[in-house]
Parts: sequence; C-alpha cells; structure tokens
Amino acid sequence: MAQNVAQKLIAGHLVDGQMEPGSEIGLRIDQTLTQDATGTMVMLELEAMELDRAKTDVSVQYVDHNLLQADERNPDDHVFLQSAARRFGLWFSKPGNGVSHPTHQQRFGKPGATMAGSDSHTCAAGAIGMLAIGVGGLEVAMAIAGEPLYLRMPQIMGVRLTGELPPWVSAKDVILEMLRRHDVKGGVGKIIEYYGPGLAGLSAMDRHVIANMGAELGATTSVFPSDDEVRAFLRAEDREDDWTQILADDGATYDLEDEIDLSTLEPLIAKPSSPGNVVLVSEVAGEPLSQVVIGSSANPGLRDFAIVAEIMRDQQAVPDVSVDVNPTSREILEDLTKGGWLFDLIKAGARIHQSGCMGCIGMGQAPATGRNSLRTVPRNFPGRSGSKEDSVWLCSPETAAAAALTGKITDPRRLPDELGIDYPRLSLPTQASVNTAMLVSPIPADEARKVELVKGPNISGLPELDPLPDRIEVPVGLKVGDNISTDEILPAGAKVLPYRSNIEKISQFTFGQVDEEYAERAMSLREGGGHVVVGGENYGQGSSREHAVIAPRYLGLRAVLAKSFARIHWQNLANFGILALEFADAGDYDDIEQGDTLVLEDVRDAIGNGDTVEVRNDRTDRTYRLTHRLSPRQVRMVLAGGQIPLLREGKD
Amino acid sequence: MAQNVAQKLIAGHLVDGQMEPGSEIGLRIDQTLTQDATGTMVMLELEAMELDRAKTDVSVQYVDHNLLQADERNPDDHVFLQSAARRFGLWFSKPGNGVSHPTHQQRFGKPGATMAGSDSHTCAAGAIGMLAIGVGGLEVAMAIAGEPLYLRMPQIMGVRLTGELPPWVSAKDVILEMLRRHDVKGGVGKIIEYYGPGLAGLSAMDRHVIANMGAELGATTSVFPSDDEVRAFLRAEDREDDWTQILADDGATYDLEDEIDLSTLEPLIAKPSSPGNVVLVSEVAGEPLSQVVIGSSANPGLRDFAIVAEIMRDQQAVPDVSVDVNPTSREILEDLTKGGWLFDLIKAGARIHQSGCMGCIGMGQAPATGRNSLRTVPRNFPGRSGSKEDSVWLCSPETAAAAALTGKITDPRRLPDELGIDYPRLSLPTQASVNTAMLVSPIPADEARKVELVKGPNISGLPELDPLPDRIEVPVGLKVGDNISTDEILPAGAKVLPYRSNIEKISQFTFGQVDEEYAERAMSLREGGGHVVVGGENYGQGSSREHAVIAPRYLGLRAVLAKSFARIHWQNLANFGILALEFADAGDYDDIEQGDTLVLEDVRDAIGNGDTVEVRNDRTDRTYRLTHRLSPRQVRMVLAGGQIPLLREGKD
Repeated sequence: MAQNVAQKLIAGHLVDGQMEPGSEIGLRIDQTLTQDATGTMVMLELEAMELDRAKTDVSVQYVDHNLLQADERNPDDHVFLQSAARRFGLWFSKPGNGVSHPTHQQRFGKPGATMAGSDSHTCAAGAIGMLAIGVGGLEVAMAIAGEPLYLRMPQIMGVRLTGELPPWVSAKDVILEMLRRHDVKGGVGKIIEYYGPGLAGLSAMDRHVIANMGAELGATTSVFPSDDEVRAFLRAEDREDDWTQILADDGATYDLEDEIDLSTLEPLIAKPSSPGNVVLVSEVAGEPLSQVVIGSSANPGLRDFAIVAEIMRDQQAVPDVSVDVNPTSREILEDLTKGGWLFDLIKAGARIHQSGCMGCIGMGQAPATGRNSLRTVPRNFPGRSGSKEDSVWLCSPETAAAAALTGKITDPRRLPDELGIDYPRLSLPTQASVNTAMLVSPIPADEARKVELVKGPNISGLPELDPLPDRIEVPVGLKVGDNISTDEILPAGAKVLPYRSNIEKISQFTFGQVDEEYAERAMSLREGGGHVVVGGENYGQGSSREHAVIAPRYLGLRAVLAKSFARIHWQNLANFGILALEFADAGDYDDIEQGDTLVLEDVRDAIGNGDTVEVRNDRTDRTYRLTHRLSPRQVRMVLAGGQIPLLREGKD
Repeated sequence: MAQNVAQKLIAGHLVDGQMEPGSEIGLRIDQTLTQDATGTMVMLELEAMELDRAKTDVSVQYVDHNLLQADERNPDDHVFLQSAARRFGLWFSKPGNGVSHPTHQQRFGKPGATMAGSDSHTCAAGAIGMLAIGVGGLEVAMAIAGEPLYLRMPQIMGVRLTGELPPWVSAKDVILEMLRRHDVKGGVGKIIEYYGPGLAGLSAMDRHVIANMGAELGATTSVFPSDDEVRAFLRAEDREDDWTQILADDGATYDLEDEIDLSTLEPLIAKPSSPGNVVLVSEVAGEPLSQVVIGSSANPGLRDFAIVAEIMRDQQAVPDVSVDVNPTSREILEDLTKGGWLFDLIKAGARIHQSGCMGCIGMGQAPATGRNSLRTVPRNFPGRSGSKEDSVWLCSPETAAAAALTGKITDPRRLPDELGIDYPRLSLPTQASVNTAMLVSPIPADEARKVELVKGPNISGLPELDPLPDRIEVPVGLKVGDNISTDEILPAGAKVLPYRSNIEKISQFTFGQVDEEYAERAMSLREGGGHVVVGGENYGQGSSREHAVIAPRYLGLRAVLAKSFARIHWQNLANFGILALEFADAGDYDDIEQGDTLVLEDVRDAIGNGDTVEVRNDRTDRTYRLTHRLSPRQVRMVLAGGQIPLLREGKD
C-alpha cells in the first residue's frame, strides 16, 4: 500500500501495536534530545534507573534554557549535566552553543530517524524527515535506556502546499496561517505532514519554523519529506552522507486534508496571549510597542537573522524600543559575523545576547508592565515572558524588523513606501560554519563508569511516589478553565527555572499564576490524602515539562478531572501516577466547585477493569461518570504510583 | 606655585573652602553620570527637588547594571529612567549601549572637567585628565541641580611611571601592583596622580583600567595628565576639539610619592576574595577553574578584547571552562566585529553576552559552587559574583585567555612554549566606530516640561521628610554593637535590589540581618514620633548606599547615638535629616537599653548654637552629653529634615 512519509517513519520503527489511529503503538527511538530545564530531572531518573550507558544512536544533552546565571544554581546544574553526560555516554552541548532544536538539526539530525526529546518543540526535527516527538523527561530517560516510546497512533493530516511566498512573507506566516485556521487544539492527536509543489521554495530551516510550531497546534509532531532541500542543508553542514531520500509514495493518502496556496499569504500576527489568536498584521497596524525580540527555535536559521539585518541596514531602531537579538546558535552567530549581518544589527542599535532560548522561555528579556512586546518566538501564553502584565505578540522576522524601525506594529509590505526599504534579496552562503568548539563528545564506556555525578547544593533527588490508594476522598484543591497551559501549572522564567533540580522548592510555585494560595493549601491537604484538580478543555497544553506533574504530585495531587487533556501532559500524569479522568458528560464540570469533597471508591479495581470511574460529589450528592484512556501499560504505572516505582517493582 | 594635575583640576573648580588636606572644599561640577541601580533614586530625588532642568554641561543616565530582565521590574525601571532623562534634560544611554565608564569616556569625557557619579568607579574618567568622583545619589542629584560637590580636600599621591610593559603584561598588572603594595585601604583620603615617562606606553583606555580600580585602593579618585595619548583617543572618537592639554607644572610636588618601573612587572592576580590579595600568577599556576569572564569597566578597551581574540585565534577553549565575554560597549562590539576579533572569539568557543556590567556586579555569569572563576573585572568580594560559595580571581585579559585555553591558572608568558602561541602584536584602528544608535539626546526644555515620569508598579516616590522637631521623646528602637555596616543596615542581593525604586518595600528589609522584628517595631512607633538607634564604634561602615538612611528614615528614625560614625554614612544621615550624635563619654553607651525612652529637649536650638546636645534617659533618669560634627551647611539640612526639604524652603 502506498505510504505517506509519516507512515513510513512509523512503520520503520514499530515494535509494538498496530498503526490504527487511536491505538497505542511502541516505537524504537534512534536519538534523544534533552535540554537543561528538563534534563536535570532526566539525568536524576537515569541515575535512579541505574543506567550504565545510553543505548540510542545519538543522545545529546543541551544547555540552552537556564543561561542567566544569577546565582550558583544554574551553573551548578550545568556542571551536573556535563558530569551526567560524561557518565551516561551522551553528547554535551555547552551553554552558549545554541538552542537545542536548530543545533541538533545542524549537527545530528538524520532523515529517517526517530527522536524523543524532553522539550515540546522536539517536533522541529520533522523538518528534515525525522519522526521527532516531544515527551516528558521520564519517557526520554526510558528511550535513552533503550525502551520503546509509546504513544497513540495519530491521524495523519496532509497539508498540500502550492505556490510561492510573496516578498515580505515567510515561513512563520505559513505556520501562523495554520494556527489561524486550526487554533491551539487543531493538531491534537495528529501528525501534520506537509507536501506538494510549494515545498520547493522552503529551505530546511524554513521547514523547521513550521514543524517547530506544530507544537502550538497541539500536534503530536509534524513531518516534511527528505528531499533535495534537505540534502542541500546537510551538504552545507558537511553531513551529506547522512542524507537519504524519504518521499511519500505515489498515491499515498491522508486521514485528513488541508491545502495552503503560499502565494496568497499575507503577514500574520498572533495577538496576546495565545499563539492561536492570529490576525493579519495590517488589521492591528499602529499598535505602539516597547520591545522587539528576535530569536528562538521558531526563528532558527541564518536567513531569519540576515533578513532582519538587511532590512535594518543603515537604519536605526527607534529610541523607545529595545531590540533584543539572540542568535539561535554559535554556528549562526559565526555565519552572521562572517556575512557582516551582525555588524548591521549592532550598528542599527540591537542588543546582541548570547545564543540560547532567552526571552522565549522568560529567561531574561522580560518586557515592561503593560507594554507590547513583539517576538518571533513560538509562544505568548500569559506571563511566559516573565512579566506579570505582559502583552506579547508573535510574528515573522520581517514584521519584527518593521516594528523595530517604526516603533509600532507595521505591515512589512509598507516599508518600501514608508522608509524606502526594498525587500532584501538575500545571498546566503552554501556552506555553514561547522565548528564543534562547544560540543563535547561522549567518552569511552570504561572511562565513563568512573565518572561521578557532580551535584550542587540545589540538586535534590526525586520525591517518593506512593501507589494509587483504593479509595480517594479528597477536596477539589483547584478548579480552572479551558486551555490551562503547563506555563500556568508550573511557570518557567528566571525566578522558577533555577529550581528545576529541586522538586520541594519548585513545588511552591505550582499554579502560582492562577491561584497564589494553591501551593500552601495543597500542602495543608497532603497529610489528609491530598487533593484533586478540576480542569476544562485541553488541560496541560504547551511545554512538555514534567515538573508540571511532579511538583503538584509532591503537593498531594492524586487526580485531575478535566473535559480533555493535552497529549504530553496527559502522558506525564500517568508517568508519575496521577489519575487523569475525562468527564463523560462535560456538563458535570459545572456542578463542581472548588472546595467540594469528591469520593472515588474502589478506584484501583475500576481503572484496572474498565475505562470508567465514578466520582461522587459530597456536597451535591451527585455522581459523575468519567473515563480514563490509559493503556494497560499505563494502568500498571498509575497503580504503582508511576513509572519509576513500577520499574523498581520489576527489579525487586 | 607649581601645580600638579589634581591641584589644577581642583583649583579650577573651587567654589568654597581651602585646598588644605582635610578641610571641606566645594567644587563646581561640570558633568554627572548615573547608572540604573542608583539612578532611579537620583531621578526620584530630582522629582522631589522639583528640578526644571539639569544645570550641568553634560549629565548622562546609563542603563548597564540591571540588564537581566527576569521580570517586569528592571524593564519598568528602564522605561522610568528614559522618561526621567527626557524630563530633566539628560542624555539616556539605552540598555545594551554599554558600561557607563568607558562609554562616557568615549562619548562625553572631557579633559579638565569635573564629574560626580553615583557609581564608585566614576573615578575611571581620571584617565583623560578629568576629576571624577563617585558619591551618593543625592549628591549627584545636587550636582545635576547646579550645586557644588563638597568633600574633604584629599592628599595627592604622585606615582611616577617609568619603563615599558613587557610582552604579556598590561595595564591591569599595573593597578594590581598598586593593590599589592597598598591594599584596599591604601588610597583612603588620597587622590592618586600618575605621571612620568612610562605614560607614553599607556593608551587612554589602558589608563582607564588603572584609574577605574583606584576605587579598589579606596582612593577619592585617580588622575592622569591630558597628553598626546588623550588627544589621539579623542581624535579616534571624532572629538579632538574636546581636547585640551593638562600637564603638571615643572617642579610640581606631591604630598606622597611612589614609583613603578613598568619593565619589571610580571603578570599578577588577586586571589579570592579581595582585590588586595595580589600575588604573581606564576605562584598560583595550575589551579583548576571552570569559568573565565572577560569584560567590565576594568577591561574596557578594544585592545583588551582584541588581545584575547588573537591569543585564542584558531585555538579552542577547554571543554570544562565557560568563557564569558561581555564587550563593554556597543562601540567596542562594532569594532570587534569589524576587525574580525569577534569571529575569533566565537570560533574559539566564547559565549558572547550583551554589552554591560554583567558578571562584574553579579548580574548573571555567576560561577558554580566552590569552583574557581577567573575574571578581568575590578572586584572579587565574597558573594559579589552572585554565588554563595564563590572563588573569584582578578587578572589581566592575557592571563584570562591563557586560562581559557589551558583550563587552569597559567602565566601567559608560558603560552609560546606550552601552546606555540606568540605574543600578538595588535594592529588597532586609529578611528573608532562612532555611532549613537543607542544614545538618546536631551530634548528642548519646553518639550521636556510636558514629559510625565512613567512609573511602573514597583516605582514609588521619595517619602515625605518632615523637619527636625524641637523636642524628641522616643524609644530606643534598636541597640547595636561596633562596626555595623550598611550591608547590615540595608542588605544588597537579588532579593532586595529589585526594590531599589520602592522605599516602602525596601524599608521592610532594614536591619533584617540584625533584628528581623526591627522594621515592624519601627513602623508601630512611627506615628508616636519615631525612634532612635544606639550604636557603637564605626557605625555605618562599608558601601555608600543611601537607601541605608532613606529606609530607616521612612520607618521613623530621627537620630542615631553612636560612639563614632563612618564618613559616608555620616554624610548620608545629614543629607536625609537624621541627627548623628556621638557620645562625649563612650561609657554612657552601656547605660542605655533597647526600649528605653530618650528625651532631647530644645534640640533645634542646641544643634544650631553649638555642638553639644543633652539626652535624658527616662528609665535611669541620667543625662548624657553628645556632640555633633555638622558644618553650618549640614546643620541647616538637618533642621529642615534633609537636603531636599531645605531646597524646597529656599524656593518658598
């Protein structure tokens, strides 16, 4: 049967299950990616699992999130991660080497390979024909240990691209168009596969922009074919040998279909505070702003900086706007320097920051209170920038450059008339600055076994995880609405991220943006059996951080009752023994108030023997029916209290 | 009479007093410099003084300290400072434009001018024949308002330089030699004037290194002549017109003398944790390290980065060391890019940070726990790096580069043998990249008057300062021992510093390290007339921060009774209307207990008519004699409630 690219990648790695949408499959994993904010926990998990050495082809530990060393905690984590990479046979990408996703694509990405990554934008690697999936840290740890990655077989949505992008419109506008059409839940349970003649005009790094922000659609991942563009990319990186052609078979079909004529696209922008709030730039033109941030894995390529540099060449940023540029990687920075573009940016008044995620994850670059910040990053959830009352807009580098020069949101197509700036025709080098100065290779196994993990005073172990009790009678500790993101469950940012290796400390920030008293209340309920949280649709969207389940679990969270869950968070809940239940009748959500006591009888039997759980509300005396979608594998985990206690049971 | 350079500068600006060491003099101030960490308070003071417009020739508000925007507070401060600069007719140097001292020297520094700056390294401007003094914020505010700067006439120490620096030895080694000889208190009460044939080999930016770290000697300031080197520097900056020759007269003498033969110097290094702990690099060679930081106002010039780049060219930083480079200014960054040096640094594996103070003031770049960090910055006091257990060493850029390539402290003179690296012969451009893209000029006065100060939620005004009452009958709110430092009165650190624009908030931390209940107790006493504090010897030593008087004044502090006071804090108390009294009989200190009620009758008359004040202790019924050392100028301030209310009186 004719296969599409996604099917080929899955079929080539299938070790368990059937490729039927909705059923659980197990995939062999070739590569893993961890970043520092999630990686310290992964390394502690590898230690807890007593792993000898990584069993993958390539596993890389990046340091790109916690780069602001305001005190000893972040650098202590860097030292710890470097020691762990050495111990377990991983590559180590030093702080300043760059954002994991584009750096990985440049140095390690391989068409046809699978990858599990503890970062929700891992899916970016789909740009070069990989099947790359963002998952919780524990699943990456399992993959490093050679275990398959389990997921529900997604539907494949084919998006046929035709035409060619007009001037001033670029890859970011393509994915913003997808978000305009499908919003932040449109990709849930789906792999998005791009194909068609329009691909010819999109470079491998343009595709990275699109695949990357597939995460914002809620997609399991996105894939592109491995074609001549991918070959050219790998050739430029001195890795043409790693190229193989992977194209959809003639006559391949898709579960769902969409089509975009690139030539019809206009500059788009996502308004505060969701990547799905997409409108035409021209509709909001004139909004004043005080900051422009250019960088991140959603603005990854040399092209995305060079276009800004050429637009700003011999121009100056307006006085009231801070223009913050963070080149995605050392390699990009070297190429920008070589090509003279960095010079243009500096001259125009840009602040040049070290290579890394920076403002994208709220690690610095926070905007002033209530002032608009225009960014080329993938997310603008409330507070993710680090500021309480933030107002973050997402756009292309062209739109960002236009705003830097005018001090207001401006359709870049106005630049020729308004400032006499013509659309730059870029001439990019065909060869990249390949340099591994900041990439430390694995050491031989016999040496690695002698390496001790270096743990600073802020690095603690994993909390104890007790089994699921048979009867749960606990209060609703918190009731929240729809689309609660993991940024709201456990914020990132410079204040919280340094505690990523310290669950007790970081748990104090849980749900802090939603309800400042949650953590204290949860702690007071812990001894009495804990609490449950009630949520709406798409609970746990966004970042893959498993801290968003480990921290509330530490505070006594036993179950989440929601209308629906986002994929990665749902998996993370099971991994750490928290019961995720969906209302059979979404209307029951309205019957519950925060503080109500809910009773779940014989819950171990219930989830073991079927997919329905009954929950009685003590206050209203009503009983709700909820379902879990756990596979038998996941049921075992939840009963045991999580994957780690389950592994330990196996060893005993 | 033949005059040295310092005497000429003072004589040319003397508006009050006699040039006799130890006696109070008043100086006309031509320029001021404020940075963001102290500047927000200065701007609030200007607002409270109802200043219409700066009366100086040049006043510049820099943003170089609080660049890490971890939340809204720092960017809110940036917006506030920009609005205040606009309102009061100041220049505004945008975040990322660079460290105040070298940037000021490049764009505004003028031989023969005086400058007051609210930063202890203001003295760096002595490099080009200025008399530049670091003082408290209110004194800078007064200078902006056109008032003289008062200080005690220092002794002048002449340091004759002869010979020429050998290869691998540079300006940093000169000032480290001074610190080796004189330690951190050797410059107290002195101006250090460099002269002699050795100057010919030291560029204006080399001299900046030396003048800058005069602060570490405790000197009032340092001065260099304005000679042909200064002329060449100003020519390179397109400002040759600002040059005037200022040399010591033939036969000029100095109060104190020293001499350094530059040709005998070897690479030096200050060990943790004082800039005065200086030894030969060769004595400590081999110490392992995990970080090298290159930048700050003590590593200011293009030369200081270019030499590192050329040493590291085609080499690579060792895997275990993070090499952090923060170019001091946008201009230096542009020149580094143009000259290819930035490319060399990136290629060798350096992390390139935005231009600013960064690691020098613990704003990022904190080292890992207990690991050596080698830095070209001016200070290594314990904890200043941001890490609790830090171990910071101070050295030249040559020594820093050698360490980056070897992973251990290395005498750079070993590089030819160890790594085959010859001493680079730099060829520097004679013309600098002059560009004001990030420097916002003052606006016309009539426009400025319409500007409103933009205060974010964390920015409050100055507290009201009421006049000294005629009768004080209040409890002793706190009794402390000897050598209480301003760090104990009002701590610095990441927790407290963000409230530097918010006296109400920051006051809650007052004396927190001594007595956690002080702030609450003081607040409860405020309505009833306030309280007094009783102290021992050397009360208020250490940092000059004026928050250490404004915060307790806000809490109701009316007088401090102590055995003796440290100079700057004593001045700050008067500036903010707090009566500083010294026991005539130190034994009376023992008679007082915390909680005693003290009564001061007719206190306004008493301090106006003599230097003695009588204080009765209600509990013991004993009466103590205390003295004040206030000048008539200071008496007026204290009676009015402080300098700001005094100024307002003058207006009414």
